Amino acid sequence: MSSSAPEHRFHRVVTFICEDRPGIVHAVSGAIVAAAGNITESQQFTSADTGRFFMRLQVESSADRAAFEAELAPVAARFDAEWSVDEVGRPLRTLVLASTAGHCVNDLLFRQRAGQLPVDIPLVLSNHGTLRELVDFYGVPFEAAPVTDTAEKAAFEARVLAAVEEHDIELVVLARYMQILSPELCDALAGRCINIHHSFLPGFKGANPYRQAHARGVKLIGATAHFVTSDLDEGPIIEQNVVRVDHTRSPSQLVAIGQDEESRTLSQAVKWFAERRVLLDGARTIIFR
Amino acid sequence: MSSSAPEHRFHRVVTFICEDRPGIVHAVSGAIVAAAGNITESQQFTSADTGRFFMRLQVESSADRAAFEAELAPVAARFDAEWSVDEVGRPLRTLVLASTAGHCVNDLLFRQRAGQLPVDIPLVLSNHGTLRELVDFYGVPFEAAPVTDTAEKAAFEARVLAAVEEHDIELVVLARYMQILSPELCDALAGRCINIHHSFLPGFKGANPYRQAHARGVKLIGATAHFVTSDLDEGPIIEQNVVRVDHTRSPSQLVAIGQDEESRTLSQAVKWFAERRVLLDGARTIIFR
Amino acid sequence: MSSSAPEHRFHRVVTFICEDRPGIVHAVSGAIVAAAGNITESQQFTSADTGRFFMRLQVESSADRAAFEAELAPVAARFDAEWSVDEVGRPLRTLVLASTAGHCVNDLLFRQRAGQLPVDIPLVLSNHGTLRELVDFYGVPFEAAPVTDTAEKAAFEARVLAAVEEHDIELVVLARYMQILSPELCDALAGRCINIHHSFLPGFKGANPYRQAHARGVKLIGATAHFVTSDLDEGPIIEQNVVRVDHTRSPSQLVAIGQDEESRTLSQAVKWFAERRVLLDGARTIIFR
Amino acid sequence: MSSSAPEHRFHRVVTFICEDRPGIVHAVSGAIVAAAGNITESQQFTSADTGRFFMRLQVESSADRAAFEAELAPVAARFDAEWSVDEVGRPLRTLVLASTAGHCVNDLLFRQRAGQLPVDIPLVLSNHGTLRELVDFYGVPFEAAPVTDTAEKAAFEARVLAAVEEHDIELVVLARYMQILSPELCDALAGRCINIHHSFLPGFKGANPYRQAHARGVKLIGATAHFVTSDLDEGPIIEQNVVRVDHTRSPSQLVAIGQDEESRTLSQAVKWFAERRVLLDGARTIIFR
Repeated sequence: MSSSAPEHRFHRVVTFICEDRPGIVHAVSGAIVAAAGNITESQQFTSADTGRFFMRLQVESSADRAAFEAELAPVAARFDAEWSVDEVGRPLRTLVLASTAGHCVNDLLFRQRAGQLPVDIPLVLSNHGTLRELVDFYGVPFEAAPVTDTAEKAAFEARVLAAVEEHDIELVVLARYMQILSPELCDALAGRCINIHHSFLPGFKGANPYRQAHARGVKLIGATAHFVTSDLDEGPIIEQNVVRVDHTRSPSQLVAIGQDEESRTLSQAVKWFAERRVLLDGARTIIFR
Repeated sequence: MSSSAPEHRFHRVVTFICEDRPGIVHAVSGAIVAAAGNITESQQFTSADTGRFFMRLQVESSADRAAFEAELAPVAARFDAEWSVDEVGRPLRTLVLASTAGHCVNDLLFRQRAGQLPVDIPLVLSNHGTLRELVDFYGVPFEAAPVTDTAEKAAFEARVLAAVEEHDIELVVLARYMQILSPELCDALAGRCINIHHSFLPGFKGANPYRQAHARGVKLIGATAHFVTSDLDEGPIIEQNVVRVDHTRSPSQLVAIGQDEESRTLSQAVKWFAERRVLLDGARTIIFR
Repeated sequence: MSSSAPEHRFHRVVTFICEDRPGIVHAVSGAIVAAAGNITESQQFTSADTGRFFMRLQVESSADRAAFEAELAPVAARFDAEWSVDEVGRPLRTLVLASTAGHCVNDLLFRQRAGQLPVDIPLVLSNHGTLRELVDFYGVPFEAAPVTDTAEKAAFEARVLAAVEEHDIELVVLARYMQILSPELCDALAGRCINIHHSFLPGFKGANPYRQAHARGVKLIGATAHFVTSDLDEGPIIEQNVVRVDHTRSPSQLVAIGQDEESRTLSQAVKWFAERRVLLDGARTIIFR
Repeated sequence: MSSSAPEHRFHRVVTFICEDRPGIVHAVSGAIVAAAGNITESQQFTSADTGRFFMRLQVESSADRAAFEAELAPVAARFDAEWSVDEVGRPLRTLVLASTAGHCVNDLLFRQRAGQLPVDIPLVLSNHGTLRELVDFYGVPFEAAPVTDTAEKAAFEARVLAAVEEHDIELVVLARYMQILSPELCDALAGRCINIHHSFLPGFKGANPYRQAHARGVKLIGATAHFVTSDLDEGPIIEQNVVRVDHTRSPSQLVAIGQDEESRTLSQAVKWFAERRVLLDGARTIIFR
């Protein structure tokens, strides 16, 4: 008759990155056993390029957060690991930057509202007012300010950093934001800023990739979601998709066709990032799908 | 007494399947630490349908095979697991059955010789002589016997079983072998016989799938590699691929287009099976890619 | 100095279907020359199954509509052809039926507003009120009425037919409308009603296809846009797409993954239909992409 | 004197390229009617970039070749067209150049023998002896000569040109021939020499594209079949394919994975070219699939 309430089980995601050597899995799994945990999902990878070991676990455990972390902390210290613990499904605080094109913003907001994208979006910032009505519909605050000269650009970037601070932002998404970020802003957002480039990188960097693709007569066009670095369109790639085209397509038709790939590629990258499935290994990403 | 020779490191693949409960990973990884092993690749999955836990590891270890297994055996016993240990890259002894179409046989033999498919093929059996020259070229023994009536079918299947015995066969591949196996042979080869079906199952079971696909006007055709069971074209699916077609394609053009998908789908399935990446979970497969 | 105004050029799409025999192209192109027209896009196909000849042309011409048709009419009569002339890009009057799932409706409305889908949508009808807010946002009238018994179903279908009449509807789109249409309604809308089925037909007809797909362990899931006939999920297929999945996906995850394919497959089919690129050849479709 | 024998019907393919203006289709189709021909397949395209009109027809006709061409010649003259007439399915005389990798050569030869590739291959030339046994098996003459210095390269290229002359070669295929052709040879073979590049162009030109792809962490790798020009890896693209990869793949695994795409991309390009479906429009190709 006693202890009738079923014990609460927490669902946690753990990431653990360190130099590879024997015994890591045994040590980490030992800590989880000690925290009354059961591993329900596990992925690991050792990079031949950097010698780093990467692990992502999902764990069911009755231990509260502090007790859980208390078991893991000594193991992390022993292996000098970067590690994180989070609740599975907790929405990531996400700031969206946009310009005039609405397809990526619409896709992100629609999926967020449909429960398919574990993010909270407290604000959309844009250098144009075009998307205000769309963003309003989803009940998300929207601010627009022009970026047509150096002073405006500095002001806009200051507003981005203030918003990051104010909302404790964990991810900044460039949803077809058509301005190049300053190196300072890139550095400030390193590892937590994702851009969608409207081509299959490394082909057709920079402006007007669909026009370039048309001129070159490619048979597939694509989109690339990548981390933003100060090296334009060279940040670590998270996801890519392509779609077949042919000689009948004009540059403007390529733009329309490519938008589908841009939307789904960016949403996919954001989803994986929010689920802590994207880890950095130098210039490359580990994606634990 | 000196330490001049570098210690030999064995590369092993371990599979471990049991009822899911806490502590499995910790126990298995502990045995591997005890066997002086380092986990270089790890995948696991718990089936919500059957409650089974599946794990595949690649391990580097200086322990010899007996010592290695001696560490794992008590863990396996404790969890009542099905388990296996093998050397990474050891060629799987594979028997190929064929009829007249050569594309799958050619693809398997070419990849095997190119070092892309870890199999040894001691024999190709066929109910037609058509492919003798092709198989000869690859230096593989070839036997043909007609299967046009019940007695011939029984004789052919007896030859299959004798060859399985004689060559200690671990995998039988139906490389467009156009005869239905008897239930007895299906049972005898359960879990180690892979067929390529020339459609995207479960659509278009049975004969002439491309003709059916044409009549139905489908826009994609495909191929399915699956385990053979006595329930025709209903065995667990290992891999599937599709390719886009349109209204201009005749049934015979669909056949030609589909052959590429058949070849690569079958070779992919055989490769994964040979690498012990294919595990059975009831009517479904776990593929640890 | 005279007649300085540039002559207006009309852009027209012509479809022409008849029994195949020599001389059709010459006769039709002769009529177009006579109408001061220039063929800018041309596709044709002769069906080996039915012996029918299908042609779609885009034509630039300075002749007004009546003069243009006056040249083509005798040719059509001579070959006993079904034919049509329309203005390129004219929006098709389209009625959308929905239930509770919003992804397809959102995709159609977003693309329509973005100028990517040449349709006018004067009304969305639903058997649930769920999507009212979404449809309102796009400024499209929305009506909901329950369909929980025979009488309600009859009333709903009567409303559909009344709306078709009232708005002179050319296309009815079932955007995840989760009710089976009566045979009478199917007949009334024959050749102008498109459904999206949430599986790769002909596999997994009927209800819960993702649950079936999970149970069967398929490695690709898909969506099929097809004409509605009274034979459930058997109407002529217009477009299909698939996406790769694996054993880790639960039925509910398959549902979420499949929604992307449903949205884009349905929108693609609607776009082609609106551009008069979809012609019927018995149980199959000719798609002049 | 009676006409008892069924009249023979020739199947011909016609290409017709000229400056776009009204009346071309009518004029060409008129010539075909005059030649007792029936158009069974027709594709046309007008390039917005160059203003050129491109047409490919398949025609059934009882007229012999001379009579058929006599009808078309005046039309071609009137429109100042480049044009060609050929028999459908006539094998194209094709010279293959290779080095050590066999997958593309094997794929071409297997398909040719299986009747899927309308080419005759009178000779394979290589700068290595590696593939002799494979080529011998298909009964195709094979010659090898080293290309390790300038003199050897000049000799090899002279042999290529001699073979082109001797066998009246219509197409030269670089089936992973790992030498850069001299500008003179590129010019001599302009428009009739196809290369397979082992990356998704324009990304990763030049040597070691898979190593570059690994370093960059791309999520899709690909292959590109293109015409050879003296501008390395910049010739007009004919066909491209990609395949998904992830972070677990080493450069050597990328090589193995990419070979499938290389083989099928090259064979597809050769097939289309042999069927006269590939037309040049400046730096781009028109592909009449």
